[in-house]
Amino acid sequence: MTRSIQLLDVTLRDGSHTMRHAYTEQQVRDVARGLGQANVPYFEVSHGDGLGGSSLQYGFSATDELQLIAAAKEEAPNSKIAALILPGIGTKDDLKAAVDAGIQMARVATHITEADVSKQHIQLSRELGLETVGFLMMAHMAPTTKLIEEAKKMESYGAEIIYVTDSAGALLPHEVSEKVRALRDHVGTKIGFHAHNNLALSMANTLAAVEAGATFVDGSLRSLGAGSGNTQTEVMAAVFERMQIETGIHLDPLIDVANDVVAKFMPRSQEIDGASLILGYAGVYSSFLLFAQEAAKQYGVNEREILMEIGNMQAVGGQEDLIFEVAQRLAQGVAR
Amino acid sequence: MTRSIQLLDVTLRDGSHTMRHAYTEQQVRDVARGLGQANVPYFEVSHGDGLGGSSLQYGFSATDELQLIAAAKEEAPNSKIAALILPGIGTKDDLKAAVDAGIQMARVATHITEADVSKQHIQLSRELGLETVGFLMMAHMAPTTKLIEEAKKMESYGAEIIYVTDSAGALLPHEVSEKVRALRDHVGTKIGFHAHNNLALSMANTLAAVEAGATFVDGSLRSLGAGSGNTQTEVMAAVFERMQIETGIHLDPLIDVANDVVAKFMPRSQEIDGASLILGYAGVYSSFLLFAQEAAKQYGVNEREILMEIGNMQAVGGQEDLIFEVAQRLAQGVAR
Repeated sequence: MTRSIQLLDVTLRDGSHTMRHAYTEQQVRDVARGLGQANVPYFEVSHGDGLGGSSLQYGFSATDELQLIAAAKEEAPNSKIAALILPGIGTKDDLKAAVDAGIQMARVATHITEADVSKQHIQLSRELGLETVGFLMMAHMAPTTKLIEEAKKMESYGAEIIYVTDSAGALLPHEVSEKVRALRDHVGTKIGFHAHNNLALSMANTLAAVEAGATFVDGSLRSLGAGSGNTQTEVMAAVFERMQIETGIHLDPLIDVANDVVAKFMPRSQEIDGASLILGYAGVYSSFLLFAQEAAKQYGVNEREILMEIGNMQAVGGQEDLIFEVAQRLAQGVAR
Repeated sequence: MTRSIQLLDVTLRDGSHTMRHAYTEQQVRDVARGLGQANVPYFEVSHGDGLGGSSLQYGFSATDELQLIAAAKEEAPNSKIAALILPGIGTKDDLKAAVDAGIQMARVATHITEADVSKQHIQLSRELGLETVGFLMMAHMAPTTKLIEEAKKMESYGAEIIYVTDSAGALLPHEVSEKVRALRDHVGTKIGFHAHNNLALSMANTLAAVEAGATFVDGSLRSLGAGSGNTQTEVMAAVFERMQIETGIHLDPLIDVANDVVAKFMPRSQEIDGASLILGYAGVYSSFLLFAQEAAKQYGVNEREILMEIGNMQAVGGQEDLIFEVAQRLAQGVAR
């Protein structure tokens, strides 16, 4: 068991989905200050779908993410700020601007089978002097051999850390162990793990990842993130303390910011309801949840049926339109 | 890995804490009907502190638990109904009356070091023809050698299933594995596991228990239970299905009753807030949570400080009064 772990908080990025990309500068300042006081080493700030995500397709940001990054940096000068960037959404100019605003880490994210498209962004990130992560999303959708292949590509482009990203919260602990161990055995980078709690397995999977060799793990305060949210940062810090795994984090201010700040502005609970359970069960991208709920309402169909169908179709990030097509089709089926 | 598991739902017993023992007959009927339709093999109905728990000390029941048991039995004739009974709270007459009302299983519960006091109740339970469980609570408070010793006592009295009960949600997965494995190796009964989610480990611990040899596991719908609640029944059923572990449960009606019935009457979310996190971190009995919140309000002190102090004192079930004494002492300390 590794005895030292880097905790990376994603409240201000994955939580942006749940906040419908409407974080205010004040909210970001309050969260960033708390994370800094708790000595959290890394945290991520950007639109839920990464730099440049503000759009009709993914939802417009209420406040420019560069302004939010700069504000966060001011409040937490000793933490490293990361930004997510998806090639095809975020451009190289977006990345340069984020560096000017204060990020020190770029997390270049692609679908598990699409590492090819990360080459230019990873290379640029290294040229800009950023700590560089390759973030392989929807990891449950490819066998471990494919994961290794894609991770090796990202490593060859210059990625220093490769993440197994369980975007659907669909992985089981033994699957996480297998995937992380495979990366440890076949890839030279550090390894990270990002969980969603749709099957109530985020903590189990995080511990499985750490045991298998991951040294970076993501979490969010009060679990604020897409679907049922992420591994709960402040709870994870407490568990690591109980397991004598070093994180460098001060627990008390972390619990304070989770409960006195984040809990106060969360628009909804991150409990596992019928729909978020289906995300994990059927393997659906967690950020599809709110779209499915909207489509269900619009077409008068069951949100769980939409998500099961989307799972069967193996839809991937970027196919948000499909959710509405499926809802429409289900509605017509009902009408027949 | 065992491939067949008995799932026991405790929504109508552990959830009674969160409901402040105010379940209506209609709520119990609606939940029981859903559990029956989902083919859940066992579920528990009684005051949160077991048969006879209705009192000034533990909180009065709004509806007589015998009436609730009888109603549940009517709605779910094919499920076995269990009742919790704590010697010192529930009497032998309470147990006999519960049999008349329809229970088929008694879960005789004691503190982890107090199995001695379960003798008469376990013997009576067997005489009454009930499936009989020995339920060792606050399992984190004693070493595994002690657990074996106490379990052997319960076995000698006639218990057919022994539970490792993580009342504080304080156990870590490797501790659960060790305890369950020790019972498997040293005791002849079947083994059960009951979790609380205060450290977000209820699912991880449940899977660890099953892997180590437990064949009975508890859960509650939408996690409704003391502290941050229990392993979420409908999510656990989905996870077992994904793991190809047989439960006999129909997932769809289970998700329906969780979300269309339980979610509608839950008084609060079962998220992990600052106070419930401390239950797990400091090893405090989960049902102390609402008492601590009340004491904090009454004396104007921090609920987390009360719980940390109660954890340091190693208080056990039945010492609810102590919570108010600690709050008073903390308030005086502040005033000095």
